[in-house]
Amino acid sequence: MIHIAVMGYGTVGSGVVEVFYKNRESIQRKIGNKPMDIKYILDLRDFPDSPYAGKMIKDFNIIADDPDVEVVAEVMGGLEPAFSFTKTCLERGKSVVTSNKELVAARGAELLEIARRNNVNFFFEASVGGGIPIIRPLHSSLAANEIDEIAGILNGTTNFILTKMIKEQMAFEDALSLAQKLGYAERNPSADVDGHDACRKICILASLSFGNHIYPEFVHTEGIRDITLEDVAYAGDWGGVIKLIGRAKRVSEDGGEIYAMVSPAFISNDSQLSSVDDVFNGILVRGDATGDVVFYGKGAGKLPTASAVIADIVDAVKATSTSKSLHWKDDGNNHVLDYKQQPGAFYLRMLGGAAGIQKARELFGEIRLLRRPGQPEEEFAFVTPLFTEAVMEDKVSELEGSGCRKLAMLRVLDY
Amino acid sequence: MIHIAVMGYGTVGSGVVEVFYKNRESIQRKIGNKPMDIKYILDLRDFPDSPYAGKMIKDFNIIADDPDVEVVAEVMGGLEPAFSFTKTCLERGKSVVTSNKELVAARGAELLEIARRNNVNFFFEASVGGGIPIIRPLHSSLAANEIDEIAGILNGTTNFILTKMIKEQMAFEDALSLAQKLGYAERNPSADVDGHDACRKICILASLSFGNHIYPEFVHTEGIRDITLEDVAYAGDWGGVIKLIGRAKRVSEDGGEIYAMVSPAFISNDSQLSSVDDVFNGILVRGDATGDVVFYGKGAGKLPTASAVIADIVDAVKATSTSKSLHWKDDGNNHVLDYKQQPGAFYLRMLGGAAGIQKARELFGEIRLLRRPGQPEEEFAFVTPLFTEAVMEDKVSELEGSGCRKLAMLRVLDY
Repeated sequence: MIHIAVMGYGTVGSGVVEVFYKNRESIQRKIGNKPMDIKYILDLRDFPDSPYAGKMIKDFNIIADDPDVEVVAEVMGGLEPAFSFTKTCLERGKSVVTSNKELVAARGAELLEIARRNNVNFFFEASVGGGIPIIRPLHSSLAANEIDEIAGILNGTTNFILTKMIKEQMAFEDALSLAQKLGYAERNPSADVDGHDACRKICILASLSFGNHIYPEFVHTEGIRDITLEDVAYAGDWGGVIKLIGRAKRVSEDGGEIYAMVSPAFISNDSQLSSVDDVFNGILVRGDATGDVVFYGKGAGKLPTASAVIADIVDAVKATSTSKSLHWKDDGNNHVLDYKQQPGAFYLRMLGGAAGIQKARELFGEIRLLRRPGQPEEEFAFVTPLFTEAVMEDKVSELEGSGCRKLAMLRVLDY
Repeated sequence: MIHIAVMGYGTVGSGVVEVFYKNRESIQRKIGNKPMDIKYILDLRDFPDSPYAGKMIKDFNIIADDPDVEVVAEVMGGLEPAFSFTKTCLERGKSVVTSNKELVAARGAELLEIARRNNVNFFFEASVGGGIPIIRPLHSSLAANEIDEIAGILNGTTNFILTKMIKEQMAFEDALSLAQKLGYAERNPSADVDGHDACRKICILASLSFGNHIYPEFVHTEGIRDITLEDVAYAGDWGGVIKLIGRAKRVSEDGGEIYAMVSPAFISNDSQLSSVDDVFNGILVRGDATGDVVFYGKGAGKLPTASAVIADIVDAVKATSTSKSLHWKDDGNNHVLDYKQQPGAFYLRMLGGAAGIQKARELFGEIRLLRRPGQPEEEFAFVTPLFTEAVMEDKVSELEGSGCRKLAMLRVLDY
């Protein structure tokens, strides 16, 4: 018998148990003849009415000390005690699978190394993109590629809010309230709307793709609080939509230097990412051999996330040694280049009238003026050619110095 | 040293060799310390100027008889000698990876069984979707799901032709000529435009998802030769596009009875599949836990396909035994139900004027009339509620009996 333990019986944990027993037969078929079952469910709360009450425990040491437990699903979330528990399990020769993006983004390299030393596995498919297969395809199916760039809509809550703004002209605050009412957003929505959640996810994807641990604190991150319906209208006139994009790009051949950023941006309607709406996620991987590959699906939610956790459990059970391809190192250095040196195009919305437009043309060269219904006479908006962020800042300062007022500025991406 | 052999040095084969040596370092990293190299390239033609001339051989037995060759890439295409060579390699304890959809669709169950008996692997990621990871995600990452349905744009050539018809109002014949000129379509384009290529691919996906070998000859298959710009215009008015869709759907719980079909169809602009344009492929997988997951990318081409072949080589090298999840059986029965019993909505374009519309309303109930620019007075087009194909045929006969003439009929899908 292969024994599994589930740590945490919240949304994801209860989903893992539910999907496991619902699809047990087909899951068992993927593993082979040796039967598999959940032996323990760890949670500090009581669930007396649960059909799994007999499996519930409150003491982590029961799992740690039971040599029969081969694979542990960590679905508690948060850094502690998740990190300590995971570390202990790996050191005792148990593989750990997790949905915990905070844990992987903060301590992934370390935990992968501990897993390697103990010849077990640390898997985290569910930490990015919920039920969308992305971690395994990245290191396995796309193994023959040098990955040059990744960009994704990685947070369902902000994508829901932006979709409401784009499709129903709902203001940001109203869309946020609706997301909270529907349970998509927390009472304190900062992790989502300020981009931190997306940042952790792009860090995990970048670490795996480029080989060095990328820490969230080095990745310039902007959220969507300042996006207005005016900006949404100008994006429409330009031929696109505003999406919160997490992105990372290889700069040096060996992946030792990369660009990484999280910010709202204009995305063309021609892009596969533009039609990723509501709570869905979409992740674009640009490889040297495959070209662009896009993965789309529900980025969160009980059952999709549980499905990814169980796929990792199955893989961990089948593995005979540590995965060699699921790996990156942490040499203690920051590998993210100063974002101000990254070139890109920009959308600017200004107050300044004809004189302002004239000055903008002097500063930016060929600009494309945009229109929106109800546009005040003094307002103008345009998209620039490519400049580095630093040069752009200087030019905007100069434009402001000439008497214009900046109302909004967003990046324009070409995925 | 891990020795690889490549059988076939055509487009895909030369791509495999090229990508292997270009990204050798990062490929090697995924495997571990044991170095890997290509030992033989089998092709009947001479390539005296190739940098790999020293590896070229013309006799298959050199590969079969060399116990050092662990993994063989079959990228010749066609049924024979691909089948015999593959069988021999598997029987001699060599894993085989292939891009050959014809081989997998015709003999997949048999070859998987031979691989199992010899404790090696038969992998075929490149046979569907080119560089898009789909086979491995289906049986591995989506392991926790019962897969209910799969639908995809599986043929790049027809999708290129339809895109030209939709976006540039190019007639079918002109778009086909352009595809041939660009090298996307063969001089004899039947395999693509008549749907046979898409049929093989949906059969492979259905076999893997539902557990029984699905033979192409039992899958009702229609191509795109009869699609006109008039139909494209009506699809636009309806709010969608015409795409060639291969689809399969579980009917009985155990997957023993399924629906499967290849046909052009109306797809709503809201669907992720609607924006899959040009030579790109898109595959939607509907699982009970994940909901809809979509995979998008280049479905063909030298480097994308080579990339998938090499990912399989890497997996085959890393595997210590036969994959248990990559598996289906062939019990000699047809598992595809009569397509005429499958319910669906339909688009009809008729000649018949007001009397015809009146009769259509009687026959079909609530129909949605569509409009197009330049619509002749006697022409009308509409979308029906759900009927089985058989009932639909009867109703159309009755409509024709009332003096109308059928100009076009297409399915309307809700992916």
